[in-house]
Parts: sequence; C-alpha cells; structure tokens
Amino acid sequence: MCQLLGMNCNVPTDICFSFAGFRARGGLTDHHRDGWGIAFFEGRGARVFLEPCASADSPVAELVRRYPIRSLNVIAHIRKATQGQIHLENTHPFQRELWGRYWIFAHNGNLCGYQPSLSGRFLPVGSTDSEHAFCHILDALAQRFPDAAPSPHELHAALRTISIEIGRHGEFNFLLSDGDYLFAHSSSRLVYVIRQSPFPVAHLSDEDLAVDFNEVTTPDDRVAVIATTPLTDNETWQSIPPGTLQAFHLGAPVALGETSTVAAEIGTGLSPSA
Amino acid sequence: MCQLLGMNCNVPTDICFSFAGFRARGGLTDHHRDGWGIAFFEGRGARVFLEPCASADSPVAELVRRYPIRSLNVIAHIRKATQGQIHLENTHPFQRELWGRYWIFAHNGNLCGYQPSLSGRFLPVGSTDSEHAFCHILDALAQRFPDAAPSPHELHAALRTISIEIGRHGEFNFLLSDGDYLFAHSSSRLVYVIRQSPFPVAHLSDEDLAVDFNEVTTPDDRVAVIATTPLTDNETWQSIPPGTLQAFHLGAPVALGETSTVAAEIGTGLSPSA
Repeated sequence: MCQLLGMNCNVPTDICFSFAGFRARGGLTDHHRDGWGIAFFEGRGARVFLEPCASADSPVAELVRRYPIRSLNVIAHIRKATQGQIHLENTHPFQRELWGRYWIFAHNGNLCGYQPSLSGRFLPVGSTDSEHAFCHILDALAQRFPDAAPSPHELHAALRTISIEIGRHGEFNFLLSDGDYLFAHSSSRLVYVIRQSPFPVAHLSDEDLAVDFNEVTTPDDRVAVIATTPLTDNETWQSIPPGTLQAFHLGAPVALGETSTVAAEIGTGLSPSA
Repeated sequence: MCQLLGMNCNVPTDICFSFAGFRARGGLTDHHRDGWGIAFFEGRGARVFLEPCASADSPVAELVRRYPIRSLNVIAHIRKATQGQIHLENTHPFQRELWGRYWIFAHNGNLCGYQPSLSGRFLPVGSTDSEHAFCHILDALAQRFPDAAPSPHELHAALRTISIEIGRHGEFNFLLSDGDYLFAHSSSRLVYVIRQSPFPVAHLSDEDLAVDFNEVTTPDDRVAVIATTPLTDNETWQSIPPGTLQAFHLGAPVALGETSTVAAEIGTGLSPSA
C-alpha cells in the first residue's frame, strides 16, 4: 500500500514541516520505499517532483524538505508497490489537463479486477490501477461536462458517483485537486487536521521535530492537512469516514453535497508553514 | 526570446555537463531570467523540473546540475518572456499525454497574431503563444490519428505540415519528444553536435569547465546535443537549416521525410555524461 499527504490553504503555505515527517515513512520509519512524489500548485501552474526510489534516500526529497515552496494545494505520495513495477511512469502523483486546468491525483489502496473502458482521451502511460482510475475519472468528467468545468457542487456529485463505481473494485483512498479545491476520498482511512489561530506547537510523530506555527503565521491563516495516518502526536486529527468524498477549500472542509458528512463553517485560522 | 537545450542518446546519459553551461545563460552569462525548466524521460515516464525564476539563482537548477539523472531524451528551456507573465504556468517545457505517451515541448521564438482554433481536447493552462502552439500540434495529431500513434514517418510528415502552418505567425524553433524520438524544428537557429567515439575533451563556452567523455563512456555510446547556440567552444556544431524539422533517434539525426536536410547514418559513438 501507500501513504497520502495533502494540504489545502487560504494563503500560500510551505509544507516543509509536514513533509519532513511524511518523507521519513518512505524507508525510515515505515516501509514505503518504492517511489515518492509531490505536486505543488502555484497559481494555475503545477510542478511535480517524482522519484522512483525511497523518499528517505532521495536527493530530490531532501531538496523539497528544505526548500519552502508556497502553495494553496499540495498532494504527495509515498509508494509501496502493489500493481505496476517500480518505474517513474508508475510513480504518483499523476498529472493531466482538463478544461484548461491541471489535475493532480494520488491513490492509496488496491483495485482488483479493475479494467475500465476508456474513450482514449486520457490513457495511462504506466501500468498501475491508480493511473487507470485517474484516467477513468477524467474521462467520465470530460464526457459529462464536455464544454467547460462544472460548478463545485456538480463536480462533487459527479466525482462521488465515479468514486463509488471505482470503489467497488477495492480500497480507493485518493486525493485529487485542480489547484482550487482539494477532494479527499476515504474508502478506508484518511485523517485531517485544521491549523488555525491560536496555533499549536506541533510535534511530528516520525521525527523529533516541532514547530510553533504562531511564529510563522498571521491570525487569518488557515491550513488543512490531510494524511493516511496522523503526522503529529499532539494534535487532534479527525477521521474522514469511509465512503466520504470530502472537499477542502481555503483551508477548511466544505459541504458540497448532501452526502458530505463533515460540515463546513470552520472559523478563521492559519499557516505559511505546515 | 528564450534558449533551448535537447539531448537524445542511445544509452541513458546524464546532462550535467551541458546543463552547467546552459544554466549559466539564465541570468549569469546571458539575460534569460524569467524561468527555466527541464524534462527527463526515463522509460515511458517523464519528470519535469520547473521554476519561474532565473536558473542561475535556482536551488532546483543547482540540484539538477549536480544530480546525474540518466535519460534517453531531455528537453530544457530558459525563458526571456515575450508573451505571458512570469508565472509557473507559463514556464517551459510543457507536458501533455497523447496515445498513452507523455509529450514534452519547449519553444524559442515569438508568434504574432496567433490564435489557433482548438477542439478543447488540449487546452493551454497559461497564456503563452508557446503552450497554445503545443496544444495546437497535439490537437492536430489527435484528429489526424485518432486511434493510435502513427509511424515515425507519418508523424514527421504531420508535424512538418503543422509546423509550417504555425511558423507563418513568427519565429518557431521548438523541441518536441515522446521519449522515443526527439524532433527539433528550426525556423531561424538551432545547432547540434553528435558526441561519439573517439570522444572529445569538451570545454564549455559559458563556464570554465571541461570533461573528457572518454572517461565516462563506452565506445558504443552516442549522444546528440541540440541547442539554440553552441554550448562548447572546441566542438564543431552543425546548424539545422531554417525550415527543417529534424528528427533524432538513438543519438543521431535520422531522415524521416523527403524534406529532411540532414542525412542519417552516423557511425557508432557516445556518452553517459553530456
């Protein structure tokens, strides 16, 4: 299996602190050694760092840990291969363009007997179930909304339908973003924490590293951090119930569909470093 | 304007030496300070490093210069903005997927009054003439070959037709690759050198750095390096005549169309470092 890390903020924030703990799980504190990747949205643009080796040993991961790239939406992944060899083309997150926006996708889980029928507009380059699912999602969205991006509510509803369909084939936890909203689908486990004023002094679970976010934020900053399992040992992480497609926007969970189980309306909050 | 750098090889080769000189032109020995990027194909996969700042000042460029990533096809670009602001989404090279392969594109030149009609399958995310041209090229290829990739000869002929059409709007030097072939279109200036046994001791034009390729290669290795202007001052760089779409494969120019002006059939040769 794999592990996911996502960040959604109301001001461009770096992910150095959270990534330090997450990266350690790729070969140091856990066994996800089969590649890693991270995608940063900056404006409409996206940049993706990928490496088909353990993040704990990766020079590129070392750069990402130390270099504060500020972003409103980040998706990262460390891989324990289930389907597809340890090659660059099978390394998450994956990227495509739809409606003139980049879409970034990473998956934790395993889909069995899953061979979607694709139109050909989006085709996998590698051989993972994950990239097939990503192409399936975009294919379905493009067919349903051929001319332009739908509203966030319509998008959520369509994504939820497709996620249920694909989820019948197995574990299907994923993070998906177009740089505006971040969608987190939990089929078994996914947790999140909202950091906002007054900020905690957060301490990583995987490394003896703490940060006082009050020193690096303003009172209006707010950041949602989403992960497969909690990254800190002194914050309260909330579970996203299995079967939920949770949207995040401007650093908070938002209710876009009737089926969304986490309510919106979180106060103001925080952090150019997470 | 901008500058282009490409590499096409018969064995996976790192581009550290050539990139050292090329990078210096992004703010040190030349004025292309408005962003830079480099794409490496590894198998079917591709990874793209992008930064919307001068390559001479970029921590990511420093990593790329020192970290030997071995690849059969590389495309790099340093930007002097003509159209589109200095944003990540306007930073070359650009990436899309077609026929289950990644395509990478970078452009040097300026297209005036160029507003192609696009079907919507490939849409620009940023606002450069370059990304519009890339989407136009892929759109035309997808319409002409809807089901699967054509043969290299058919691909070359189609690309040449599209390039002539787009080139009517202005300077259109570009590098394009699917990880197998590298296509270099010269509308005004583009040069290349083939490094093969016996290898030269190459010396950079932009930095006092030399490398004896005999120490890092085998006699069968062969590398084509393509650039806007020569990167070394003691090798003979050949010009790609304006109006030519030159294909490179396994480290050598290949004649795919009647209009190709550079003959194929270069001997054996090489370099796991270029």
